[in-house]
Amino acid sequence: MEERLISKAVISRLPVYLRYLGELKDEGVEKISSKELSDLMHVTASQIRQDLNNFGGFGQQGYGYNVSNLYNEIGRILGLDRRYNMILIGAGNLGSALSGYQSFENRGFSFKAIFDSNHKLVGDSIRNIPIMDINVMPAFLENNKIDIAVIAIPKTAAVSVVDTLVKCGIKAIWNFSHVDLDVPEDVVVENVHLSESLMRLSYNINERVKEGAE
Amino acid sequence: MEERLISKAVISRLPVYLRYLGELKDEGVEKISSKELSDLMHVTASQIRQDLNNFGGFGQQGYGYNVSNLYNEIGRILGLDRRYNMILIGAGNLGSALSGYQSFENRGFSFKAIFDSNHKLVGDSIRNIPIMDINVMPAFLENNKIDIAVIAIPKTAAVSVVDTLVKCGIKAIWNFSHVDLDVPEDVVVENVHLSESLMRLSYNINERVKEGAE
Repeated sequence: MEERLISKAVISRLPVYLRYLGELKDEGVEKISSKELSDLMHVTASQIRQDLNNFGGFGQQGYGYNVSNLYNEIGRILGLDRRYNMILIGAGNLGSALSGYQSFENRGFSFKAIFDSNHKLVGDSIRNIPIMDINVMPAFLENNKIDIAVIAIPKTAAVSVVDTLVKCGIKAIWNFSHVDLDVPEDVVVENVHLSESLMRLSYNINERVKEGAE
Repeated sequence: MEERLISKAVISRLPVYLRYLGELKDEGVEKISSKELSDLMHVTASQIRQDLNNFGGFGQQGYGYNVSNLYNEIGRILGLDRRYNMILIGAGNLGSALSGYQSFENRGFSFKAIFDSNHKLVGDSIRNIPIMDINVMPAFLENNKIDIAVIAIPKTAAVSVVDTLVKCGIKAIWNFSHVDLDVPEDVVVENVHLSESLMRLSYNINERVKEGAE
């Protein structure tokens, strides 16, 4: 199957399809037409057909999509047919929130350890995940196969921690620190820059105000 | 100045420009060429010139950009030349993390109250922001001018809370619940769907693995 020339926009919509299909599956729905799916998702049916055609098109003329098959296939494309071991760097409020999402675990993303430089937290645990001293992180990474490092520390600390992670062979980083990470080409980074999201909101608030004033 | 036909991609890059320009300003840098800015940001100089030309182009041939002017101008475009009153719904770990970011306050985004349905938390406060019973939210909104509601509660609760918010006249929602909100056209929503971000990462991990295997 040709999956290599898929646009970023289509990739970004796959998790949304997965979410809606998961809900349909939970409700016991077995098949759905692109028209029904489009009503549910508030996108056009032609957009849905185009998106799914990127992956060979799972629909059958006059039948629609088999919900369970499509759900599994999109999950496979997103890499959800395997498990990921993760470490979390930063045991603050954000880190605690991230380590507590049962839905990540359910999807196959498991936190194996949390690292922090605050000695008051080291030795403690969050939902049975041990909090360890940041200094033992290299040794931990040598002895455990970790797929993803999650960065939830202030940006001043993030750069040197990421250097260490890269040296220890980490190939994927989920970055919540408000800094663009400088990593080798074979390391994938997914950024969640919250303040940039908030600024998009303030931009849109003001655009809306301007429209209203016209 | 013509600001109306700006693409979403350009808008998404404005906070990034603002971040880099803010750092330059803090370092005392007064002017910068698009070439220098492009080296710093790892994007092409032509991309930078194109992006900024959308807003009239602030550069002068042979001089470059005045860092402080450009910073202020982009801030204004993003709506950061005013203040925003916010309420937070959900006093859990994620809510605590969000209410604790000093950088939001510094940018003009102030939390005025936190609402939760957990009676054990009501009456408490997080960084001097009072936690109130979710039932008094409508009365609070009647008596206070709130610009943005931040949703940090599970999706099962989010839908009915958002209905209440919309009825109370809220026009902007920063949504961390894993659900697409159904709101009237004049309400702007900015979603932060963390699990979708994590799936984009797992997609890219697997693409990387496939490339490596070729």
